[in-house]
Amino acid sequence: MSNSNLVAGSLAEAMAEAAAEIEEALDVLLPPVEGPEAVLAEAMRWGAMGGGKRLRGFLVMEGARQFGVARDAARRAAAAVEMLHAYSLIHDDLPCMDDDALRRGRPTVHVKFGEATAVLAGDALQAQAFAVLAAEETHSDPAVRAELAHRLALAAGPKGMCGGQMLDILAEAASEPLGEPEIARLQLLKTGRLIEFAAEAGAILGKAPWPLRHALAAYGRELGAAFQIADDLLDATATPEETGKATGKDAGAGKATLVGLWGVERARAQAERLAAQARTHLDSFGERADLLRQLADYTVSRRK
Amino acid sequence: MSNSNLVAGSLAEAMAEAAAEIEEALDVLLPPVEGPEAVLAEAMRWGAMGGGKRLRGFLVMEGARQFGVARDAARRAAAAVEMLHAYSLIHDDLPCMDDDALRRGRPTVHVKFGEATAVLAGDALQAQAFAVLAAEETHSDPAVRAELAHRLALAAGPKGMCGGQMLDILAEAASEPLGEPEIARLQLLKTGRLIEFAAEAGAILGKAPWPLRHALAAYGRELGAAFQIADDLLDATATPEETGKATGKDAGAGKATLVGLWGVERARAQAERLAAQARTHLDSFGERADLLRQLADYTVSRRK
Repeated sequence: MSNSNLVAGSLAEAMAEAAAEIEEALDVLLPPVEGPEAVLAEAMRWGAMGGGKRLRGFLVMEGARQFGVARDAARRAAAAVEMLHAYSLIHDDLPCMDDDALRRGRPTVHVKFGEATAVLAGDALQAQAFAVLAAEETHSDPAVRAELAHRLALAAGPKGMCGGQMLDILAEAASEPLGEPEIARLQLLKTGRLIEFAAEAGAILGKAPWPLRHALAAYGRELGAAFQIADDLLDATATPEETGKATGKDAGAGKATLVGLWGVERARAQAERLAAQARTHLDSFGERADLLRQLADYTVSRRK
Repeated sequence: MSNSNLVAGSLAEAMAEAAAEIEEALDVLLPPVEGPEAVLAEAMRWGAMGGGKRLRGFLVMEGARQFGVARDAARRAAAAVEMLHAYSLIHDDLPCMDDDALRRGRPTVHVKFGEATAVLAGDALQAQAFAVLAAEETHSDPAVRAELAHRLALAAGPKGMCGGQMLDILAEAASEPLGEPEIARLQLLKTGRLIEFAAEAGAILGKAPWPLRHALAAYGRELGAAFQIADDLLDATATPEETGKATGKDAGAGKATLVGLWGVERARAQAERLAAQARTHLDSFGERADLLRQLADYTVSRRK
C-alpha cells in the first residue's frame, strides 16, 4: 500500500515535471507577437497553454527517454503533439460542433476570442505542429523529421482524428444508437490514433528497432482505448468540481460511449483489462518503462 | 498580336493539362471511402476537386520541370498545395468568416454538407496535404520531404496564411481603413506566402542550387502580389458570369484592398509592374521558363 502510493507519487511528479517542461516549450514555440495579428497568437496560446494533464506530451517524452533521446528534442515533439491536440479541442468546442463554453475551468477559445478567431487559431496550431516536427531543431536526421510529420498527419487526418470526429457527429444525429464495434472504431480514430502516435513518436526520435517501436505503438493504442473509457466514466460519475469541466453531458447529448452501452461497472472492468493489456506490450522494456506501466494503471484510476 | 495569341494559347493549354493531371492526382489522394464516414471524404472532394485554375499547382509543376523532377512527384506536391489552398477556401467561406454560399459556381462545402462537416473537411485537407508531402512516394530523399513539409507549414501558419486571414478579419471590423503597407502585408501573408511556396516547391523537389531556388521563390512572391491585385480588380470590374462567383463584394463588405485604396487604374498599373518584376527573377532561367514568364502576364490580364 505505501509502496503503491510512493509509485503513484513518482508518476504524478514525473507527469507534473513533463507538463511544466512542455508548457515552457509551448511558450517558446508559440511566442506572443506584436502588431495587429497579436490576437491570433494570443488565441493560440489560450487554447494550447495553461494546463491539462499533457498525457500525449508525457507519452512522447517517456517514449523518447526509453531510447536516450535528447530531452530538448523530445520536448519539442511533445509540444507539437499537444498543439495538434489543442487545435482539435478548439474546433470540437465550436458552436457548430459540441458548443462548449468551458474547458479546464476557463472560457473556450471561441467564447473568449470569437468564432472566426477560434477557427483560425485551431488551423494555425495544426500548421505550427508540423512546422515544429519538420524543423531541423527537432532532429538532425531529416528521415526522422519526415517520418514524424508523416505519422502525425495520418493520425490527424480523415483516417484518424478528423474521421473519428465525423463519426461522432453522425452518431449524435443518428436515429439508432451505435453498437460496440462502431463505438470502438469511433474512439480509435477520434482519440486513439493520436495517443498511439504520441507513444510511437519517442521511438521514431530514438530510431528504435521496429519491434520496440511497434510495441510502444501497441501500448499507446490500448492505453488510448482505456483512457477514452475512463474519460467517459468520469463524465458519467464525477462532478464538474473534480474535472474542471461540465460532466454528465454524454448521456444528455445522447453521445455514443461504451459507458452508455455497457453501464459503469462493465465499462470500468473493460478499461482495466485494456490497461493491463497495454502493460504487456512493455514486457521487452526494462525498469526504465516503469512510469509507462504506472501510467496505464493511473489512466483508469484517475478522478480528473 | 497573332504571336502573343499563340503564346497565350500554349500557356492556356499547359495550364489546362496540369489542372487535369492535378485533378487526377487529387482523385487518387482523396479517394471516396465506404462506411459511415464517407461523407467526410465526399466533403473533402467537393472542396478540393472540380476545377479552379490550379495556379498554385501549376507553379509547383512548372517549377519542378525547370529541374527535371519526375512528373509524378511534382503532381503529388502540386496536389498537396491545392489541398492546403482548398482547406483555406472552405474555412474562409464559413458563416463565421466570409459567409459565402457560392464558390466556382457551386454551393460551398458548408452549404452542401453543413457547418461541422465543413470545419472537419478543411481540417482533414490540411492534414492530408502534409501526409502527401511527407510520404516516401513524393520523394526518395527524406531531406526533401522534411523541407517541403516545413516550408508548407510556415507558409500556412500564423506567420503565413492564417496570420493574413486574421488581419483580414480585423480589417473588416476596424474603424479606420488600412493604409498601403498594412494591405500589402495582409495580402503577402494571406495569399502570397502559399504562392511563394508553390513556386519554391519545384526547386526543393529538384534540389536546385540556392540562387535558383531563391529566384523562383522571389518570382512567386511578386507573382502572388500581382495575382492578388488582379483578383481584387476582377471583383471590382467583372461580372459573376465571368468569374463564377459573386463580385463587387469587397467594396460592399469594406474589404481592405489596394483597388479600394488606389482606384482601378493605379491598381492595374501596379499589378503590371509587379508582374514585370516577377519576370526579372527568371533571368537566370532559360527558355524552359517561358511558361512561367507568360504566367506573370496572364495573371494580370485574365478575366476570371
